[in-house]
Amino acid sequence: MRHVTIAHAHCDLYCGVYDPAQAKIEALSVMKIAQKYQDSDDEVFRARALQLKEERAEEVKHHLMVLWADFFTAEHRQEFSNLDDLFWRAIHQAGEAKKSADPADGQELIGLIDEIGDIFWQTEKGQGHGGLSAQLDGTR
Amino acid sequence: MRHVTIAHAHCDLYCGVYDPAQAKIEALSVMKIAQKYQDSDDEVFRARALQLKEERAEEVKHHLMVLWADFFTAEHRQEFSNLDDLFWRAIHQAGEAKKSADPADGQELIGLIDEIGDIFWQTEKGQGHGGLSAQLDGTR
Amino acid sequence: MRHVTIAHAHCDLYCGVYDPAQAKIEALSVMKIAQKYQDSDDEVFRARALQLKEERAEEVKHHLMVLWADFFTAEHRQEFSNLDDLFWRAIHQAGEAKKSADPADGQELIGLIDEIGDIFWQTEKGQGHGGLSAQLDGTR
Amino acid sequence: MRHVTIAHAHCDLYCGVYDPAQAKIEALSVMKIAQKYQDSDDEVFRARALQLKEERAEEVKHHLMVLWADFFTAEHRQEFSNLDDLFWRAIHQAGEAKKSADPADGQELIGLIDEIGDIFWQTEKGQGHGGLSAQLDGTR
Amino acid sequence: MRHVTIAHAHCDLYCGVYDPAQAKIEALSVMKIAQKYQDSDDEVFRARALQLKEERAEEVKHHLMVLWADFFTAEHRQEFSNLDDLFWRAIHQAGEAKKSADPADGQELIGLIDEIGDIFWQTEKGQGHGGLSAQLDGTR
Amino acid sequence: MRHVTIAHAHCDLYCGVYDPAQAKIEALSVMKIAQKYQDSDDEVFRARALQLKEERAEEVKHHLMVLWADFFTAEHRQEFSNLDDLFWRAIHQAGEAKKSADPADGQELIGLIDEIGDIFWQTEKGQGHGGLSAQLDGTR
Repeated sequence: MRHVTIAHAHCDLYCGVYDPAQAKIEALSVMKIAQKYQDSDDEVFRARALQLKEERAEEVKHHLMVLWADFFTAEHRQEFSNLDDLFWRAIHQAGEAKKSADPADGQELIGLIDEIGDIFWQTEKGQGHGGLSAQLDGTR
Repeated sequence: MRHVTIAHAHCDLYCGVYDPAQAKIEALSVMKIAQKYQDSDDEVFRARALQLKEERAEEVKHHLMVLWADFFTAEHRQEFSNLDDLFWRAIHQAGEAKKSADPADGQELIGLIDEIGDIFWQTEKGQGHGGLSAQLDGTR
Repeated sequence: MRHVTIAHAHCDLYCGVYDPAQAKIEALSVMKIAQKYQDSDDEVFRARALQLKEERAEEVKHHLMVLWADFFTAEHRQEFSNLDDLFWRAIHQAGEAKKSADPADGQELIGLIDEIGDIFWQTEKGQGHGGLSAQLDGTR
Repeated sequence: MRHVTIAHAHCDLYCGVYDPAQAKIEALSVMKIAQKYQDSDDEVFRARALQLKEERAEEVKHHLMVLWADFFTAEHRQEFSNLDDLFWRAIHQAGEAKKSADPADGQELIGLIDEIGDIFWQTEKGQGHGGLSAQLDGTR
Repeated sequence: MRHVTIAHAHCDLYCGVYDPAQAKIEALSVMKIAQKYQDSDDEVFRARALQLKEERAEEVKHHLMVLWADFFTAEHRQEFSNLDDLFWRAIHQAGEAKKSADPADGQELIGLIDEIGDIFWQTEKGQGHGGLSAQLDGTR
Repeated sequence: MRHVTIAHAHCDLYCGVYDPAQAKIEALSVMKIAQKYQDSDDEVFRARALQLKEERAEEVKHHLMVLWADFFTAEHRQEFSNLDDLFWRAIHQAGEAKKSADPADGQELIGLIDEIGDIFWQTEKGQGHGGLSAQLDGTR
């Protein structure tokens, strides 16, 4: 059993490399930075933490937008009727995680991305991407 | 006769400056660059046109995402039930306009942004932003 | 009643889309962020405010440079003999607004951009851009 | 059984999220874009392909630099005595893949990143990151 | 006799590091890329050349704006009455060099930057920066 | 006797413009920003200082990577057997200088870049670049 693999829509070229992992990686950073911010009382560290969390959360938003509008098709949106709502909440939550230094906001963001990932891997298109990645990895 | 209202969500800080004009400005460029690409047979010009269209279309996508997830609220999405679909189609169309050198793709994108703008200006929140802008312009 | 004309020089391609509104939108954010910084005593919020103000003010500088050197011609600079000075002061003031958390610095910046806008709209070239925009808006 | 999982050094903050997958994802895009470039005779598509390949290869270089100088320690470099050479060749190869439209250059790049990945996953530090990721994934 | 040294305004923080060399380095690239474009008949190389020239010329514009509005003071602009005009022509010429694949446009740009450099090194402020740099270089 | 001249690898195009000065300029800023941070007790100034230092140090890392993998060849790396180690330490130190507000970290970074510069100017390739630059400067 495996899944995270790789792939991610970079380029609007149909390069065929898509994966929810990109958004999740950034969201993990957002959460962990918030944790480290809470654990530190060093002014320099805390200032840097907020700055870097901002950048990571912006990356989350970008990756999610790419998945929503480039990977998922009109047909997917019919099949998974909560897809639009899920993306709105996830992108919105990335904004919340920017504003907050509470790791729980990052954790909630990760949960939403996992829900998106579950749908992604149910689609034939997603599995095809996974197949490609796995082939290149030599792991399938 | 007047011109230039303004506002646009820049920053996830609730700076209170939002406006569909940002996305539309970029979309206008996308369309006009495609037109100029078609009208030119100069290799240098055409290469630059494609490159710059790519950047402008990416900006459209970004501005639309900000409007959707930062300006519009869960309540707005209930009130205007086509909002999610409209945004998906607009962001998706920005990707189409990247791939194409046909000005019609940019024109279709502009039409979708105008539909979003119509909803924006119907909201009290949008009018408040407009009111602010107008006050600063001295034009209302 | 309506709003939003548009245009802005994006691309050194003569795409024909120029407008002082771009700089003004960013300057409005600069001013409002400074206000919100003053009104807040939350460490996270204040740190984010300074970071985002920095980015917005940098955008102002960029948009002004584009207007000065790409939209305005040598002839315009002869006709409006204070143009160079106005741009120097505006771009310099954007730097001041970076350094300061006083909304008055953003307000002064907005005033300078409005002076530039007044000249912009006096030029035939500016009106032509406005005309284009209006045509696309269906408002002229 | 293995999985790419996730993690990647974003931020010089010791956020603790590192993974060779980031570089590999971009390298996959580089290779596939080159393939699609070869398969197309459409001028617009080919121009876009080269532009996007450039960006993706630059991302590869960045991710590799982060792994080399931020994740791997002086001790790792002693233990794995070919590490510096491997990174030089991989980063250099990313430059070669920029210059070329031959998918084989991207494929060679992927091979080098896989060699780096093999070392990464041998380190206790890498396994720790993997452990974290796996825990969050619920897959270990 | 020496001069190039270093320093450059990066940051609106008065970090005290300014130098016309930054703009000149980019302008040199612009000129040389145009030369290489002319000497090549390889499609991939030529496409990349135009793309990279675009980025380099944009950097020139940025560095010149910083020198003009951040390094040079209102007093300098009175003392060197052609300063504003020189900057307008240089920034404008950077735009011309974007549009063109003729190395002569890059050469003209370099000439204008050299004129700016001559003024820079006449100012006490510029010499002070040079002094710092030289001290760090161990060459004065 | 002089040396700084200019040149710097921008573009993976073999534009032939390389120089260690680029990295050093940024490192100078990093050191001076840390100094100014220490000398200030103004909250706004200090927050901006940390943010700008972050960006400058990131630029150092980028310029060093370009020198290492694009300018220096496999042959250079054999001839100067400490080259890889020097680059690892310099890039790693740039990360340290990000994390710290101690000017000594920036100073150490500058020292490492100077060591790289010494090697650069010993190579025929580096001298050739210097020769080019000097020719354009009219100083050799």
